[in-house]
Amino acid sequence: MPEKVLIIGAVALGPKVACRLRRINPDVEITVIDRDSLISYGGCGIPYYVGGDVAELEGLYSTIAHAKRDVEFFSKVKGFNVLTRVEATRIIPSEKKVMIRRLDQDGDGEDALFYDKLVLATGASPVTPPIPGVDLPQVHVISNLHHAQAVKSAISRGEVERAVVIGAGAVGIEMAEALADLWGIETTIVEMADQVLPQALSRDMARIVEKKLRDSGVNLMLSERVTGILGNGENRVESVETTVSRLPCDMVILAAGVRPNSELAKEAGLALGKNRGILVNKRMQTSDPHIYAGGDCAEFMNLVSGEECIMPLGSLANRQGRIIAANINGGNEQFPGSVGTFCIKVFDMGVAAAGLNLAQARAAGFDPAHVTVAQSDRAHFFPDADFMFMKLIADKKNRKILGIEAAGPQGDAVKSRVDAVAVMLHLGITVSDVCALEVAYSPPYASAMDIVNNAGNALDNILNSSLKSGDTFEFLEKFQQGKAKVLDVRSRTQAEPFTAKYGDRWINIPQDEIRERYNELGDAAQGEEPLYIICGTGPRSYEIQVFLASKGITNTLNVEGGYGMVLAIHEPLV
Amino acid sequence: MPEKVLIIGAVALGPKVACRLRRINPDVEITVIDRDSLISYGGCGIPYYVGGDVAELEGLYSTIAHAKRDVEFFSKVKGFNVLTRVEATRIIPSEKKVMIRRLDQDGDGEDALFYDKLVLATGASPVTPPIPGVDLPQVHVISNLHHAQAVKSAISRGEVERAVVIGAGAVGIEMAEALADLWGIETTIVEMADQVLPQALSRDMARIVEKKLRDSGVNLMLSERVTGILGNGENRVESVETTVSRLPCDMVILAAGVRPNSELAKEAGLALGKNRGILVNKRMQTSDPHIYAGGDCAEFMNLVSGEECIMPLGSLANRQGRIIAANINGGNEQFPGSVGTFCIKVFDMGVAAAGLNLAQARAAGFDPAHVTVAQSDRAHFFPDADFMFMKLIADKKNRKILGIEAAGPQGDAVKSRVDAVAVMLHLGITVSDVCALEVAYSPPYASAMDIVNNAGNALDNILNSSLKSGDTFEFLEKFQQGKAKVLDVRSRTQAEPFTAKYGDRWINIPQDEIRERYNELGDAAQGEEPLYIICGTGPRSYEIQVFLASKGITNTLNVEGGYGMVLAIHEPLV
Repeated sequence: MPEKVLIIGAVALGPKVACRLRRINPDVEITVIDRDSLISYGGCGIPYYVGGDVAELEGLYSTIAHAKRDVEFFSKVKGFNVLTRVEATRIIPSEKKVMIRRLDQDGDGEDALFYDKLVLATGASPVTPPIPGVDLPQVHVISNLHHAQAVKSAISRGEVERAVVIGAGAVGIEMAEALADLWGIETTIVEMADQVLPQALSRDMARIVEKKLRDSGVNLMLSERVTGILGNGENRVESVETTVSRLPCDMVILAAGVRPNSELAKEAGLALGKNRGILVNKRMQTSDPHIYAGGDCAEFMNLVSGEECIMPLGSLANRQGRIIAANINGGNEQFPGSVGTFCIKVFDMGVAAAGLNLAQARAAGFDPAHVTVAQSDRAHFFPDADFMFMKLIADKKNRKILGIEAAGPQGDAVKSRVDAVAVMLHLGITVSDVCALEVAYSPPYASAMDIVNNAGNALDNILNSSLKSGDTFEFLEKFQQGKAKVLDVRSRTQAEPFTAKYGDRWINIPQDEIRERYNELGDAAQGEEPLYIICGTGPRSYEIQVFLASKGITNTLNVEGGYGMVLAIHEPLV
Repeated sequence: MPEKVLIIGAVALGPKVACRLRRINPDVEITVIDRDSLISYGGCGIPYYVGGDVAELEGLYSTIAHAKRDVEFFSKVKGFNVLTRVEATRIIPSEKKVMIRRLDQDGDGEDALFYDKLVLATGASPVTPPIPGVDLPQVHVISNLHHAQAVKSAISRGEVERAVVIGAGAVGIEMAEALADLWGIETTIVEMADQVLPQALSRDMARIVEKKLRDSGVNLMLSERVTGILGNGENRVESVETTVSRLPCDMVILAAGVRPNSELAKEAGLALGKNRGILVNKRMQTSDPHIYAGGDCAEFMNLVSGEECIMPLGSLANRQGRIIAANINGGNEQFPGSVGTFCIKVFDMGVAAAGLNLAQARAAGFDPAHVTVAQSDRAHFFPDADFMFMKLIADKKNRKILGIEAAGPQGDAVKSRVDAVAVMLHLGITVSDVCALEVAYSPPYASAMDIVNNAGNALDNILNSSLKSGDTFEFLEKFQQGKAKVLDVRSRTQAEPFTAKYGDRWINIPQDEIRERYNELGDAAQGEEPLYIICGTGPRSYEIQVFLASKGITNTLNVEGGYGMVLAIHEPLV
């Protein structure tokens, strides 16, 4: 058993290790140090503090019983010491010693703290892109409570009419919502990639989020790189310049990702991974067995791709913290890795994902089959039923699931479906397992055949070649270039405005007439371009695709998610 | 490949088999017969039709695109025949023949239908208890749309001021809500067992539902058996008589469970299971390999207990239907069984469960460890965060999870947690797997350490003997009998009304003073009765239990779910 445990970092992982360790070992000496004065806060809550959902900054570092998680709290309630405004400057593993500097004391004097076991909970820092103007005072990163306070103060003082957020990852989107929704600030997101949430979503699912952002009043500039932030000569931000646009603004939020704080570890000779995070084994030990690391500063295995990755997420840090505490105390618990389960609220929509998106799956060397489905998120006859969209991705070779993504107005319901697949992803579940997934059913919460089962069924149909479908955003691109014809199998009333507008490019044969009228398709089904079959959400068009195939008409593609998906990613076609 | 497939029953399973079979085989002749004129309806939606969430009866048998699922629909759209008002009277397996009677034709004449493969989708019928008065016209079962219509008509005509529902299973509770909530009918549920939902919930979790029902205006009579239904002499219901009460009423709903419709199968010599359901193998074949069965009339394996069971649930029927269609067509798909995943909306609360409850686990021969936890259903600083309650049950012998139950105001969020464990139950997951379950995290949807992980952690603590806890309803019984003392570790302000009312039976030492003041406990911690430690939700009292144990004070029990759980199952103590 160790006698002295030293923990560097007092947010998320650090306090978790200390609390758990104290519970399982009343005698060990535990010291936590942190550079900051504000500690043990919920960093993921910052956008909600800025946006006003969380009224007071204290809310982010208080317990559910309204106790502030400060030095006194940890001492009196949790039974260990926290030293704030203390920076670790150097680790000397051979002497089991950490050199520290007390930031509130004059002079350069260093002290030493000794340990039997050391925990690195140093977190991550926001990436600051190397562009002119990033040091202007109205340019903010969002990485601790001081930043949060600075942003909210500026807004509260009425200094911000227009803001630019750089980066359309989770933090960028959450911050844009905070600025635009409650404060009515004219907000623009600039993103280098050609989609939002490129780390989480496939292209078509990202389109849903993009439309939601734009419909909610956020300007969105994709495929644009920021080249500079311009000041007005009086040290105030005036605009953001990109490869394409010039965006006038009073505030800039940098949300271009984070980088693990691994310098201390590196200088101490500990091994780093390819993402510059600290390498740990499954017991969360670094290359020095007396030093543990976890949370945002450490790499872990993505259990789907088999590759090392980093992912700044309080939930991972908490689970790792528990494991580190047990192992320091002589236990043998393991953190095998993560499948990257993720969720985010985007205005009144919930989005969730796990595993690899389509681009990631391809980049990792898989040959992925994939499908996107649309379905009611509760029994369709239930009053507040609304569309949920779900993408499922599997390896063609062995039908193993590689990823799942979903979006819809009931965020908890969206998360519910993704979680049900996510928890099994590391086991290598197959498409058939998803078809058979036993999720709870009652009309207020689900359809008798749940969307997650139906996504499995649809992907099964694709793998068995009975369903041939095309990405809906690709269909829209082709259709608008005049390159695609449509067979609309909805009712006459529903289809009439489309046939009126698009003429012979939009053929309507209602579902209940197709068995008698399929011969009318004639030329439309013979061209080089496939005939796109569309219905409300996809199942009817699939059924008709199968029927047509039985009649020898095979040059068809199903519009995934039907017209419901079209409306989720595009302006109405009529 | 079969040439003729005959399906008996046109609700849920039957149409599912037929639709899927037609998609994968355009040539086979498919005939579905049903006694009823109304078919392919969502039976689980009946309470929502009666309650008004679903305005028109048609809503329950229409597609999402508002097509009525009737004979014409199945013929024109789905491509197979349905014969309604046709009753199967006899199966003659040796001749692959089913004798039928056309109910709308005069005379007793029987016809024969031949099959290559037969599917029994005969469903289940409500149990009618053998008591006087059940045949009075205002006594209704809820098993098809005619019943639904009769109940709603009577209510709409203003004939019902008081109703009694017999049975507190899912249908009974849903019907009670429908009657009481929208129509303002004075509604009483009578249940033989000493709790509601005895098939789904453990006692303490049931108490939460019971309080919700009573707080919502439903009268609840537990541990009472109905002995008769009394009429007024003019063929109208006047009251329900139980072993304890006499309950005046104008309408009675029988919701005392269902029985599989297996007579046809039995008479044909097919094997039945111990619940009188039709026995099938994993391919859903009966003891005659040319005859398949599924849905409410068939037994299946409970994958946790290993015992055969029945469970009338549209979701199971749909998944089984897909499998039967594939196997009829020469496939080899399997339905291994179910873990009984279940959910229900109870007024503004969601309830979900999977696996075995505590009583079922004991009855099945396990030695279960169990815990109930309370936690915020989203980050506690998020505005609409509210309590969720969760029970987790595991086998002491091997730490395998036996069951999970949850309840809370966000039904989708409740279902989400239960589903995440449910989908892995058949794999024999352990407590450690639940601790490590990777569910998505973002403050609007979860805490960084999710309730499902914390439930796992708490059960882990119990199995490691660091947490010793007592069922909260047992604590309340003891406390009110004057047999239990309490250590309240909440703040002085919170505890003051309790110490004022209960004197030395309610000791308050706030959490942040316990490390200095634990010696004051003295006698309170030495008695024969354990000292119950209470906080808001349970984690603080656990931490203090651990601390006290390190000081030699071991005669304590943690009040599970804290005062939050007390309020969920009981009137306030002050």
